[in-house]
Amino acid sequence: MRVLTGIQPSGDLHIGNYFGSIKAMIESQNDHEVFAFIANYHAMSSLSDGERLSRLTMQAATDFLALGMDPQKSTFWVQSDVKEVLELYWVLSGFTPMGLLERAHSYKDKVAKGIASNHSLFSYPVLMAADILLFGSEVIPVGKDQIQHVEIARDIAVKFNNQYGDLFVLPEFRVDENVATVPGIDGQKMSKSYGNTIPIFSEEKIQSKIIKKIVTEAVPMEEPKEYENCNVYNIAKLFLDYEECAALQERYKKGGEGHGHFKLYTHDVIWEYFRPYRERRAYFEAHQDEVREILNLGAAKASATAAPIIDKVRSVTGIRY
Amino acid sequence: MRVLTGIQPSGDLHIGNYFGSIKAMIESQNDHEVFAFIANYHAMSSLSDGERLSRLTMQAATDFLALGMDPQKSTFWVQSDVKEVLELYWVLSGFTPMGLLERAHSYKDKVAKGIASNHSLFSYPVLMAADILLFGSEVIPVGKDQIQHVEIARDIAVKFNNQYGDLFVLPEFRVDENVATVPGIDGQKMSKSYGNTIPIFSEEKIQSKIIKKIVTEAVPMEEPKEYENCNVYNIAKLFLDYEECAALQERYKKGGEGHGHFKLYTHDVIWEYFRPYRERRAYFEAHQDEVREILNLGAAKASATAAPIIDKVRSVTGIRY
Repeated sequence: MRVLTGIQPSGDLHIGNYFGSIKAMIESQNDHEVFAFIANYHAMSSLSDGERLSRLTMQAATDFLALGMDPQKSTFWVQSDVKEVLELYWVLSGFTPMGLLERAHSYKDKVAKGIASNHSLFSYPVLMAADILLFGSEVIPVGKDQIQHVEIARDIAVKFNNQYGDLFVLPEFRVDENVATVPGIDGQKMSKSYGNTIPIFSEEKIQSKIIKKIVTEAVPMEEPKEYENCNVYNIAKLFLDYEECAALQERYKKGGEGHGHFKLYTHDVIWEYFRPYRERRAYFEAHQDEVREILNLGAAKASATAAPIIDKVRSVTGIRY
Repeated sequence: MRVLTGIQPSGDLHIGNYFGSIKAMIESQNDHEVFAFIANYHAMSSLSDGERLSRLTMQAATDFLALGMDPQKSTFWVQSDVKEVLELYWVLSGFTPMGLLERAHSYKDKVAKGIASNHSLFSYPVLMAADILLFGSEVIPVGKDQIQHVEIARDIAVKFNNQYGDLFVLPEFRVDENVATVPGIDGQKMSKSYGNTIPIFSEEKIQSKIIKKIVTEAVPMEEPKEYENCNVYNIAKLFLDYEECAALQERYKKGGEGHGHFKLYTHDVIWEYFRPYRERRAYFEAHQDEVREILNLGAAKASATAAPIIDKVRSVTGIRY
């Protein structure tokens, strides 16, 4: 099954990103054909700082390779390196009724939030449709806020297929219901916009400081403590197996230790968990040319997959003369 | 001076097209750097018949080469053969406030006429901005209905330049006020939408039949006739020099000849005028591979002009990572 994922180059990854989507994607490489691209064209819709975009693109590539994106098994590239996507985007625009875009929640939400309303923001779902359809993607794992975009891509594909024959695979969205909810250090859902994240790849001192700020109940040291609603526990358990969880619960119930101790423990656990990834990251950080080469090879693989599809599109739509 | 023209591949050319814009463009090749492209991406906005689009593209190429488009002097290509235009289109979309597009007359008019409102029709002005800016075009000859589109291109260029430095040449529109108004066979402005056109490259019998249908006043054969408001005269004079005009006026004033005679004469004049073009057309019609080769070379020339511009765009916007 061919599974497509777009990666926003949005800066420092946090453990909410990791347990929310990255881990599942990395693992799915074993039994699916994973296509993953860094969505730099999309990012331009709301970022007009070129120096920053180029840096974030390399950072996303480095981070994902560190976390286990495997360019042997999967196809991993930067969106703008497969230019065919923009040709398909233009073609699909002719099959996109304006009403379909005007009804897109995501656009309406962004405008409501005061993000300057420009044409690329508005037409985002058409480019996303091109991302999906260009590679014959069958399944698109999404958050609930992105379901509508996959539906728009389907609608556009159906309209095109009605005109020119069944050229496009109709994609399905998949919302992973088993995804762990990761609490931020304030107990709300971990999200960059809440400023409550624990970064994956920060310096140890910084991470330790952040973990010390996790909000907990005030309970005297010697008394037993609740673990079920404790933010420290709920973050730590993401990294623990069954027995380690049970042992930590015991420590909560027994009393005699404060939340500070559990925080130290949680820091150690997280720090150890990401150690191999951090080491891989240091390697790629020191070998950025190798990262670029991997991305180039990925783009070539992605282009090769796109070639027969865009070729047919050019032929049936009369772009080829 | 670099002058850019987009050619809609819209089918059989008529003498209204010729005296309205083609003749001026062909002549301008002597003292300007002419960039002219067949706008097949644009045509897709309202044409979803691929077989027809591909045929119309070749027909436009053949017609324009026949009429004097000179690939040695000028740069002549098919829009979709220079893919960079779509990358610039996407980049510019981020600098296009939605309000700018929502205010475009041309879109509002098309929607009012009942043309199905799709995203490519809506975003037409952004692609046109990319067409213009990608080649450092200085002057865009336009009809009055297209002035706003050049202004939109300027607005977008200014916004981009404000962000990333003076990368784009700001284009100027030029409305040729000296353009002859060509009457159709019913006396209204000659236009395909009125069904009153005289084609340039039809068979002689067909053209002769059409000219016989030119609407004239009913005046007895022997009486003198008005030439000033006569559609036959006003069409014929486009092809005549001063003395030939004066001679025709005399025939009108003298009487003794009917409009049928003037129509025969007009047919002969038009037929002779286009004879060398028709012969060139027959040559290119029989050598379509040569036409394709000319277009390929044109695309390579256009790409070479675009290269330093798109290269800078990729660099400043962070597409290059």
